[in-house]
Amino acid sequence: MIETVHSFEKPLAACTVAIAGLGLMGGSLGLALRGKVQRVIGVARRPETIAQALAIGAIDEGTSDLSGAGAADILVLATPVSVILRQIDEVGRLAAQGVLRRGVVLTDMGSTKGAICAAMAALPDSVQPVGAHPMCGKESSGLEVAEATLYHGAPFVLCPLPRTAPQIVALLGALAVAVGACPLELDPVRHDHLAAAISHVPYLASLATFAAASDAAQDDDLVWRLAAGGFRSTTRLAGSDPAMMTDILLSNRAAVLAQLDHLQAHLTRLAALIAAADQPRLHDLAAATRTARDWFLDAQR
Amino acid sequence: MIETVHSFEKPLAACTVAIAGLGLMGGSLGLALRGKVQRVIGVARRPETIAQALAIGAIDEGTSDLSGAGAADILVLATPVSVILRQIDEVGRLAAQGVLRRGVVLTDMGSTKGAICAAMAALPDSVQPVGAHPMCGKESSGLEVAEATLYHGAPFVLCPLPRTAPQIVALLGALAVAVGACPLELDPVRHDHLAAAISHVPYLASLATFAAASDAAQDDDLVWRLAAGGFRSTTRLAGSDPAMMTDILLSNRAAVLAQLDHLQAHLTRLAALIAAADQPRLHDLAAATRTARDWFLDAQR
Repeated sequence: MIETVHSFEKPLAACTVAIAGLGLMGGSLGLALRGKVQRVIGVARRPETIAQALAIGAIDEGTSDLSGAGAADILVLATPVSVILRQIDEVGRLAAQGVLRRGVVLTDMGSTKGAICAAMAALPDSVQPVGAHPMCGKESSGLEVAEATLYHGAPFVLCPLPRTAPQIVALLGALAVAVGACPLELDPVRHDHLAAAISHVPYLASLATFAAASDAAQDDDLVWRLAAGGFRSTTRLAGSDPAMMTDILLSNRAAVLAQLDHLQAHLTRLAALIAAADQPRLHDLAAATRTARDWFLDAQR
Repeated sequence: MIETVHSFEKPLAACTVAIAGLGLMGGSLGLALRGKVQRVIGVARRPETIAQALAIGAIDEGTSDLSGAGAADILVLATPVSVILRQIDEVGRLAAQGVLRRGVVLTDMGSTKGAICAAMAALPDSVQPVGAHPMCGKESSGLEVAEATLYHGAPFVLCPLPRTAPQIVALLGALAVAVGACPLELDPVRHDHLAAAISHVPYLASLATFAAASDAAQDDDLVWRLAAGGFRSTTRLAGSDPAMMTDILLSNRAAVLAQLDHLQAHLTRLAALIAAADQPRLHDLAAATRTARDWFLDAQR
C-alpha cells in the first residue's frame, strides 16, 4: 500500500512544469510560464513540434512521451479530452512504476470536466490530481498561433476532487494568476452544465447555421458573395477544431442535449411568432434579448 | 395621364441626394457621399438628429419630412422596412402633387426587397424606382456610430423593376461605387432567399443561443462570468436593433421560415449523432463544415 503524499509545498517559482500537448493551449501556457517557473518540459510525439516549441521559446526542453516528464512537479495535460482520458491512465501506470516524481501534481486543460475528474479520482495516491479549464481560445488552433497573453483575463476553472489538498488548489491558483488568468473553483458537473450553455451549444448553433447556409448555396452560390460580418461572427465557432469539439460534445452528452433542447424550443417559438406575424411579441422577445445581452456585455467590461 | 419620364441623365456629381432616415445606414451614406454629389439633404423627424447630422458633416441641409426633398434628383429611404413601405406611398402622393422633382429616382436601403419592390411597382410614372440593399452593418445602430467607410467593399445589391430604365441602374451603380461598395444586380425574390440564409436566420440562431443561455443562467448566473469570446461572437447579431429586425423577419416570412427549417433539421441531426455517441459521423460533419467555412473565408479575401 502506497502512503498518501500531501506534503507538496514548493512555491510555483521552484516548480518544474511539464506540458503534454503543444497546441494553442499548451504552447501558450509554456510561453506564459517560462521565466516564472523553474523549468518547462514540453511533451509531444512529433520531433518537429518540440523543435518549433523550443524555437519560439515555449519550452526549455522537450520529450516525446510522458515517461520523459519524471522531473516534473506539475504535469499539465493540454491535449483533446479523449487523449487526456487515456493519458490519465498512463500517468497512473507511470506513477505506480516510480517513473514520475512521487506526489506529482496532475492537472489538465480539457473543456469538459466530469469524465476527466472521474478518471482522476481513480489515480494512485502518489499522484495529486486537480481538474482545470482555462476558458479562452481562438478560432484557429495549433502552436503557430500560441501566444503568451492567451490567458489574460480568462476565468481559469479549477475542479478539485474530494481528495485534493488545499495547498494543491492554491498552487494551481498561483499558476493561473502567473499566466494572467482568474482562478475560479467549480464543481465538475456544474462546470459542464455552464460550458454546454456558453460554449458547446453555441458551437452547435454556429455549425448548423453554416450548414443551413450551405444548403441555400446548393441552389445559389451567390450566398457566399453576400455573406458579411454578421454571418462570419455567428459562424466563427464552426471554425473550431473538429476532433477537439467532437471529444467535448461526446464527453458532455447529457448537458449538451438538455441545453440543445432549450435552443430548439426558442427557435420553434420564434418560428411560430413569425408564422403568425405576431409583431408585438416578436419585437418584445428581440428587445428583451438585446437588453439582457447589453447587460451581459457591460458586466464583462 | 402623366407621360413616362425616363430622360434622367445627369451625372452623379451633379445630383442632389436626399436621405430619409439618418441612422447608421443613412448617416454613413451622407458622410460617404458629401463632396461627391451636388448636395445632400437629410430628412429626419427630430430636429436634434438634423443638428447632429449637420455637426458631423453627414448632410448639407436638413428637413423634417419628405415634402422638403423637392430639390432631390435621388431620394434614398434609409429607414426600417415598415417605414420604407409607408414612405413609398407618401412619395407617390407627393409626386402626384408635384412636390417632388419630376422623374426623381427613388431607392432604399431596406434589408428585404420583395415587399418594397412590389410597393415601388405601384408608383406613378413621375417616380423612377429601383430597390437597393447595401449588405453591411454594425452591431450598434444610430447616427453616433455612422462612418464614411461603412460601405467599403460591401456588396451593394440593386433590384431594378421591369420599368426601371438602364441609365437609372447605372446611376445607382455609380452611387454604390462612389461610397466604395460593389454594385450587384439581383432579382428581389432571389435577394430575399439569400438574405434569409446569411442574415435573417443567423440572427434568429444568435437570438435563440442567447435566450437558451439565459435559461441556464436562471439556475446559475455564473454562466455570464464564464462566457468568453466565442459566445460573444455567436450572439453578436442578437444585439441588432429589435424594431429593424422584426420588420425584416415579418417582411420576409416565407423565406425565413423555409431557411429556419433547414437550421432546425441540422440541429436535430446533430442532436441525434450526439445522443447515439456517433463519433465518426459527428467528426465528419464538423470537419466538412469547417473545411467549407475555410473555403468561404478564403474566397472572401
